[in-house]
Amino acid sequence: MRDADSQDKRQAALLEGAAGDPLLGEHLFPADLPSPGAPAGLDPSELSQRPTVKGSMRITCYDYCPERFQTQEVTNLPDFLQQHRPEWCAVRWICVHGLKDMEALRAIAEKYQLHPLAIDDVLSSQRPKVEDYPAAGDAPGRLFLVIRMVQQEGRRLVSNQTCFFLGRNTLLTFQQAPEDVFGPVRQRIENAKSRLRTNDVSFLLYALLHATIDAFFPLLEKCAERIEELEERVLSRPTQAVLQQIHRLRRDVVTIRRVAWPMRELVLELRREAHECFSENTRLFLREVHDHIFVIFELVESYHDILSTLTETYMSAVANRMNEIMKTLTIISTIFVPLTFLAGVYGMNMPIPENAWAISYPIFWSVVLAVIGGMLWWFRSRKWF
Amino acid sequence: MRDADSQDKRQAALLEGAAGDPLLGEHLFPADLPSPGAPAGLDPSELSQRPTVKGSMRITCYDYCPERFQTQEVTNLPDFLQQHRPEWCAVRWICVHGLKDMEALRAIAEKYQLHPLAIDDVLSSQRPKVEDYPAAGDAPGRLFLVIRMVQQEGRRLVSNQTCFFLGRNTLLTFQQAPEDVFGPVRQRIENAKSRLRTNDVSFLLYALLHATIDAFFPLLEKCAERIEELEERVLSRPTQAVLQQIHRLRRDVVTIRRVAWPMRELVLELRREAHECFSENTRLFLREVHDHIFVIFELVESYHDILSTLTETYMSAVANRMNEIMKTLTIISTIFVPLTFLAGVYGMNMPIPENAWAISYPIFWSVVLAVIGGMLWWFRSRKWF
Amino acid sequence: MRDADSQDKRQAALLEGAAGDPLLGEHLFPADLPSPGAPAGLDPSELSQRPTVKGSMRITCYDYCPERFQTQEVTNLPDFLQQHRPEWCAVRWICVHGLKDMEALRAIAEKYQLHPLAIDDVLSSQRPKVEDYPAAGDAPGRLFLVIRMVQQEGRRLVSNQTCFFLGRNTLLTFQQAPEDVFGPVRQRIENAKSRLRTNDVSFLLYALLHATIDAFFPLLEKCAERIEELEERVLSRPTQAVLQQIHRLRRDVVTIRRVAWPMRELVLELRREAHECFSENTRLFLREVHDHIFVIFELVESYHDILSTLTETYMSAVANRMNEIMKTLTIISTIFVPLTFLAGVYGMNMPIPENAWAISYPIFWSVVLAVIGGMLWWFRSRKWF
Amino acid sequence: MRDADSQDKRQAALLEGAAGDPLLGEHLFPADLPSPGAPAGLDPSELSQRPTVKGSMRITCYDYCPERFQTQEVTNLPDFLQQHRPEWCAVRWICVHGLKDMEALRAIAEKYQLHPLAIDDVLSSQRPKVEDYPAAGDAPGRLFLVIRMVQQEGRRLVSNQTCFFLGRNTLLTFQQAPEDVFGPVRQRIENAKSRLRTNDVSFLLYALLHATIDAFFPLLEKCAERIEELEERVLSRPTQAVLQQIHRLRRDVVTIRRVAWPMRELVLELRREAHECFSENTRLFLREVHDHIFVIFELVESYHDILSTLTETYMSAVANRMNEIMKTLTIISTIFVPLTFLAGVYGMNMPIPENAWAISYPIFWSVVLAVIGGMLWWFRSRKWF
Amino acid sequence: MRDADSQDKRQAALLEGAAGDPLLGEHLFPADLPSPGAPAGLDPSELSQRPTVKGSMRITCYDYCPERFQTQEVTNLPDFLQQHRPEWCAVRWICVHGLKDMEALRAIAEKYQLHPLAIDDVLSSQRPKVEDYPAAGDAPGRLFLVIRMVQQEGRRLVSNQTCFFLGRNTLLTFQQAPEDVFGPVRQRIENAKSRLRTNDVSFLLYALLHATIDAFFPLLEKCAERIEELEERVLSRPTQAVLQQIHRLRRDVVTIRRVAWPMRELVLELRREAHECFSENTRLFLREVHDHIFVIFELVESYHDILSTLTETYMSAVANRMNEIMKTLTIISTIFVPLTFLAGVYGMNMPIPENAWAISYPIFWSVVLAVIGGMLWWFRSRKWF
Repeated sequence: MRDADSQDKRQAALLEGAAGDPLLGEHLFPADLPSPGAPAGLDPSELSQRPTVKGSMRITCYDYCPERFQTQEVTNLPDFLQQHRPEWCAVRWICVHGLKDMEALRAIAEKYQLHPLAIDDVLSSQRPKVEDYPAAGDAPGRLFLVIRMVQQEGRRLVSNQTCFFLGRNTLLTFQQAPEDVFGPVRQRIENAKSRLRTNDVSFLLYALLHATIDAFFPLLEKCAERIEELEERVLSRPTQAVLQQIHRLRRDVVTIRRVAWPMRELVLELRREAHECFSENTRLFLREVHDHIFVIFELVESYHDILSTLTETYMSAVANRMNEIMKTLTIISTIFVPLTFLAGVYGMNMPIPENAWAISYPIFWSVVLAVIGGMLWWFRSRKWF
Repeated sequence: MRDADSQDKRQAALLEGAAGDPLLGEHLFPADLPSPGAPAGLDPSELSQRPTVKGSMRITCYDYCPERFQTQEVTNLPDFLQQHRPEWCAVRWICVHGLKDMEALRAIAEKYQLHPLAIDDVLSSQRPKVEDYPAAGDAPGRLFLVIRMVQQEGRRLVSNQTCFFLGRNTLLTFQQAPEDVFGPVRQRIENAKSRLRTNDVSFLLYALLHATIDAFFPLLEKCAERIEELEERVLSRPTQAVLQQIHRLRRDVVTIRRVAWPMRELVLELRREAHECFSENTRLFLREVHDHIFVIFELVESYHDILSTLTETYMSAVANRMNEIMKTLTIISTIFVPLTFLAGVYGMNMPIPENAWAISYPIFWSVVLAVIGGMLWWFRSRKWF
Repeated sequence: MRDADSQDKRQAALLEGAAGDPLLGEHLFPADLPSPGAPAGLDPSELSQRPTVKGSMRITCYDYCPERFQTQEVTNLPDFLQQHRPEWCAVRWICVHGLKDMEALRAIAEKYQLHPLAIDDVLSSQRPKVEDYPAAGDAPGRLFLVIRMVQQEGRRLVSNQTCFFLGRNTLLTFQQAPEDVFGPVRQRIENAKSRLRTNDVSFLLYALLHATIDAFFPLLEKCAERIEELEERVLSRPTQAVLQQIHRLRRDVVTIRRVAWPMRELVLELRREAHECFSENTRLFLREVHDHIFVIFELVESYHDILSTLTETYMSAVANRMNEIMKTLTIISTIFVPLTFLAGVYGMNMPIPENAWAISYPIFWSVVLAVIGGMLWWFRSRKWF
Repeated sequence: MRDADSQDKRQAALLEGAAGDPLLGEHLFPADLPSPGAPAGLDPSELSQRPTVKGSMRITCYDYCPERFQTQEVTNLPDFLQQHRPEWCAVRWICVHGLKDMEALRAIAEKYQLHPLAIDDVLSSQRPKVEDYPAAGDAPGRLFLVIRMVQQEGRRLVSNQTCFFLGRNTLLTFQQAPEDVFGPVRQRIENAKSRLRTNDVSFLLYALLHATIDAFFPLLEKCAERIEELEERVLSRPTQAVLQQIHRLRRDVVTIRRVAWPMRELVLELRREAHECFSENTRLFLREVHDHIFVIFELVESYHDILSTLTETYMSAVANRMNEIMKTLTIISTIFVPLTFLAGVYGMNMPIPENAWAISYPIFWSVVLAVIGGMLWWFRSRKWF
Repeated sequence: MRDADSQDKRQAALLEGAAGDPLLGEHLFPADLPSPGAPAGLDPSELSQRPTVKGSMRITCYDYCPERFQTQEVTNLPDFLQQHRPEWCAVRWICVHGLKDMEALRAIAEKYQLHPLAIDDVLSSQRPKVEDYPAAGDAPGRLFLVIRMVQQEGRRLVSNQTCFFLGRNTLLTFQQAPEDVFGPVRQRIENAKSRLRTNDVSFLLYALLHATIDAFFPLLEKCAERIEELEERVLSRPTQAVLQQIHRLRRDVVTIRRVAWPMRELVLELRREAHECFSENTRLFLREVHDHIFVIFELVESYHDILSTLTETYMSAVANRMNEIMKTLTIISTIFVPLTFLAGVYGMNMPIPENAWAISYPIFWSVVLAVIGGMLWWFRSRKWF
């Protein structure tokens, strides 16, 4: 299965940055940070002044109750926002993909009275967090969540965020990326027997959160496979490419940890603090998310440890190879350097009695072979080879 | 006792993955994680849709009070569940092995009103945890525990779990594996003078927990033996195989720690928080479990430290060997390279006065011996050998 | 793009301390610590005894309310302090640059009843902190903040401090440095539609704090760029200059962390503890500062980790180069040392039968070529080249 | 004072495990752990079923009040237990050495109503702990303490335990080992002016605890001496034996820490939580114990750090030696290898004009000396020697 | 400025323990620990039994109020203690140097009703701590502080302690050392305008504490200078002496940390807990001490980190030197070993056609020069020099 040459080529390709490296750490510096001194918070009215790409938003609305289910692609946003929710509808999920149409965003923000700070957070890169915007005046209470997921994009691991606004019956989700990991949840909504259908909107939030966190597992599985491959390679062929692979995988693991750590805090905070929009039953189910994020954490930590140990093992494998090389050199030199001296002696042009003997040549060779044999025996006795 | 050659062969075998390696870390990625997006929680009714192996469950029921004891293998589950506990029975322990018969599981879950989330946990791999399902409506309060144990399975260390449902008089245990570490507890139940017989069901739970935690000790003892062997080897014969052994043992220790850590939290939580099913007396005995898990922890930590130090020692033993090799090379070269030059000089074909002398040859050898002697004295004075 | 020679020159220049090193850690020992045993706290009256540079202070006063905005350079300080704030003015910001005019400082301190300890802190180097001087007698309550920022000054990273006195309607800022990072905030004040204009003085403090903390980002971006450059270099050309660069960058990162850490505590304390001068709305916005300081922290930590790993990688790259050198030496020596011995043998002056043969020379060369070929094949089979 | 040869011999002896190594870490795995599944807790009645060595217990009883003092070796235990304490007696200390006479133990346990769990703890190896057995029914309240001490036993450091049962007027101590560190306390009891005599039984407990903890100091002093010796050796003669010594001393330090850590927790718990048997005055004196255990802790931690640094220093001393060896080789080879080539040239049998010159030999030697001189100058300019 | 030779000599001197090493860690084991089993606490009456040096104590008494100030050297202690404080006196500071006159100590202890435990602490070495001896019966409440300072004594860093007894109007300080760092505070007391004069006795305690803590700064400045010198040296001349210097400086830094750490706890405790003798105003000023001790801490921590990094840099500088040495050896050997073989070939005594040619000698040299040139080009192309 393992062809050393093709592997070397693959490694060389990796070193030169060619395609094929499945995981690569996120950029060291996040791309979309605000410029220093810029004001925080965006009133819906300020959105209109931002560059906009009309129609670039894809909005899907899911309405369901235990008995009925209905989904609609929202093409005419103003019409949609003017209509009320159908009477029968227990839970409404408005799922927004793409965040470049500022007019549409403004319309949603005004309809659902989103807080300026939260709107700003939706449009820029944030740490995972949960924020409670309590009911104030006629603005109803909202729970605002930012969660992050690590996904592979081309050759890099990138993290992208999803924002949730949880109301009493409505959940809004905003995502920059066109794809998400919510497919299985959508299928479960359509299934009338699903537990989702009989529960409230906070249960939907829980289900989406659960799906997001479980999406870490395939990434970790890939990491585990790569670690096992590297563990094998580090002892059989400790080339610099292997070290570089370890180095990169470590960066990947650190990237995952950097996202998973605040996700863990987020889940802990959700479990700890009650919120009017969060039903008691959902809080019970949050235990599962909590358990999974801890499993993820322990896996990430153990991968990090193993990779550190691998670096050590690499260094010692290199030292072993050096040892082997030095031993070869030493054995050859230790045998032939004295013999060369001996041959040099009998090549001297001074009067040497031995040179006149007839049998000196056979004697010379006997001495040579004896020296070689003795040396080899000595090396072996010291376990040099 | 130690035959170096046979040891080398054993090590070679280990390197090639042959049988004989007593401990090997758990798989890097747990096998039975749920697929992302799958719903959490299993209603008993949903169990029927799962693949099932009818009759694969082995259910044993133990009933006892201070005066009487009775055990029965349950072969006809529906009948068994319909009957009430005998009047005299103070404690009933239903011990389930093998979790593939979904119908049987459903029957038990419905009879004992187990929570869907707990049923899901029984069927999938979980972190050790203690969860309180308080009495709600007609469902009585339950304490649900998941504990994990590390066991050797062939050449790998694997961890398997046991789930406990603790009610007021009944304890249910669910185990995937056909064997467990509860043998001594069963013997103690049969013994009428045992403290188990005079105590309530929570004391039985404590005894099983205690047996599980004490089962770590033989594993740790084996680790200790291997460490002591490796400590001896690392200084006498620092081969790469030894390093690999250290590496593996470290993985084993990490595996044990990964299971012991949440077990410790579990015990702490049990001690800290009162529960209606937990008698005061049992809580007193939990101190013992608590002390043992701390001893385990300190042992695991100290093994981890010692193994880290061993790696360092290995590296320095390798460096020492390198030093020895280099010294040999340097001594030989430093002696004979200048002498070879000298012999080369008198082998030149130019008119050299010394070559005409009669005693030049003995003089030459005297010089050679003087140089060798001087060099050796110099090396010795620098403590090179 | 990369010219190795010019890079080497640049590195050499760096090593010799020439200009061009963009970031260099702060001095190991802070320059302006008080002399041991000196009294703490400065009464305004004591200020007069200090060395003073009259007129060296630049004082600017900004007055604004939602409708109006007015700025004035204060040239005649006594006059300015005698006048009352205009009636319409909701917020007054007095921004002081340069702290060498003790008379001016005394006048301000007396007018605004600043506490002696706070005056002392303004004039000496402090850790970032927030201190509450509650209203006592006729002295109104003040919130006193010291914040620090890292800035590049020539070739070194230096940190400088800004002190804030927050009253009910007035904010005083004191800075040693002639320049600050508050430019964008000033522009926003001038803009009538800005959120700053409609909020109170604590919102101004928040905005300045936010601007200060966001000023870390360009520094971190520069670090990220340098890390990526070093990562590339460490594998392609592991010279000592690269190691030194890593060492220096590490110092820079530690410098940034040393300032960012207490800034984080400061923000946490501001969020946690209510203060009469701090409006509820501002506290909501502090969340943003809090999030940013956490992002900064995680970036600094990850840079620190990466740089540690880089040192390891450097060491192994050096070990790899050593390996390569040793291999070359060993290959050449192992081939030619035995051959030299062979040539030496046939150069001996004793009667050697082979020397009499006619074809001995071609045979000799055949043997030589066979030995070279055999050796090369052997080296290749061991993957030495 | 230091004779290198005799030291080497001593080290060799150490390596081979001969006598003379003053400190050696405790066994990796504790010997007296209970077998898994064994029941915890021992009723006094169960003691009779254990193997017993009649008369192997040495029991001493000390009675004292401020005015009187009386000590008795208890030979007839049943008689002793039947008698009441003398009227005048304020404090009774029953000191038990050797724990193999089960009948005697049972008699004491029944007389003083000891809890089954505590009896079990007395007979097996425990972590240091303090447990409160509150008064229940007619059983009076007891404070149960297990403390551990590290002592040197032959060539190993072993830890042994002392158990205390503190009642209102009576203190029971149980020790396995025949000797203890309580001698000075006994002397102080006999002294009528001692503070012990005027205080209650909890003060006696404090005094014994203090004596136990202070017994760590001589061990630590020995460690300090060995560290200082090793520090000197590691730079002057970095042999593998030195490394092994460091390694062992580290194990010793870890052993001490493993015992001192829970002792620290024990003292903290005693200080924190009031107990009916503990007088206010004694709690004041516990501060001293607390201070001492912290001093011990800081010493142990600093020794651990120093030993880690020593390993590093050792490695670099080895690297320095390697450097020295390589330099010697390189200097000799670099000088003579080119010269050997030169001599070889003039030994060629082809027509060489120089060979015909009369002065070629002196010229040759001049060249040789010039090369040697130039090389040496070059090496010196690079600070190679 | 830097003369390498004289530096080397200085280093050699350091290595041999000669004078000149400004900082050297404290002894590994503290000298004045109590013997195990000794009783804790000293009644004043017990002091008389201790060895005493009559008249060895130097006692100075400072009395002041805002208007008056008076200082007296106490020569007749009994007289002094019988007199009452003058009426006008607001604060009395009795400053005791030298603790060998037990009679004098007893007189003071009885007059001021010092607690036996505190007297014991004054006479032995203690960790920094603050203890509250509350008023009990007729003994007034006292705050007892032990603080420690690191000072340079000859070539070692030693720590010495000062004990404070704070009453309502009186402060007692006890110091073993004849000198202290309180000079500036004494000058400030004499100055009628000083804030000290207008404040109470707790402010005096604060001022002394502040002076003590600020005395860390000169030590740290010296450390910073030495670190910068070592940083320069480690790259330019990585000798073993440099490593040893790093090692020592690290010990010094650890020594400082070991004292600074509990000082920090002490300050935190003073700030946290109110005490009847501590005025509100003084507590405000404690903030300054608190800030300074944190600055000290951060400096110590950063020095520790930098020194760890320096060790790494040292190791890599050594590895670089080794690389350079190996490269030289390899270049020389790789060029001349094959050429020596070639010369050996033409020195063989067998019939070699080339030896008969007339131009073979010039051809030989051409080949030699071509090989040398080719090799050099090849080495350069691999960036070996």
